[in-house]
Amino acid sequence: METLPLSPVTTTTSSALYLPQVHPLISGKWRLSLIYSLRGGTLRYGEIRRMHPQISEKVLVYELKDLTELGAVERIAYRSMPPRVDYKLTPKGQLVLQLIGHLQQTEQAMQVG
Amino acid sequence: METLPLSPVTTTTSSALYLPQVHPLISGKWRLSLIYSLRGGTLRYGEIRRMHPQISEKVLVYELKDLTELGAVERIAYRSMPPRVDYKLTPKGQLVLQLIGHLQQTEQAMQVG
Repeated sequence: METLPLSPVTTTTSSALYLPQVHPLISGKWRLSLIYSLRGGTLRYGEIRRMHPQISEKVLVYELKDLTELGAVERIAYRSMPPRVDYKLTPKGQLVLQLIGHLQQTEQAMQVG
Repeated sequence: METLPLSPVTTTTSSALYLPQVHPLISGKWRLSLIYSLRGGTLRYGEIRRMHPQISEKVLVYELKDLTELGAVERIAYRSMPPRVDYKLTPKGQLVLQLIGHLQQTEQAMQVG
């Protein structure tokens, strides 16, 4: 990934909140849960589906596609019979995983406080 | 606020992501921006509105109401003429503000990485 100059970011965050890469990954109902489910490493599509019985198959496919396009998840398709598709976190997904640790700490502080 | 037992949280987070209090505050298009705009202290409604010209008045009123109901923002109405309404962060809102610091760090890491 290309290194971007830092000055525009610093200038913008001084007046408004500027989170173009992080915000789409933490918003929405399922994205954080899906990233969190990949914390142990690579999972097959069927494993992710069984871990999220409350998500419809249509929404799950859509969300995994979005997470792949946003660069948080890598999709690995094998030319096997039956077909096999794996998913794993990218370095960007790992950064979100670290963030989830902070989110859990904040959640606990809110529940106690 | 009542102190809740910690064990159910711990049990649940071991398998699934459980963020019932934090998640509604970080999701959505404007909530984090609105909380961030209150980082310097109390603001009048008109000041918040001028800081977010891209939010329609209808959505702004709705979002401030939600943030108040979620306990992140306190609404203070004065019986004055003209009427005056102020908003400020609650301790829960301050916790979100700390989280925003981590979000900004992650954003920078993603832009550099």
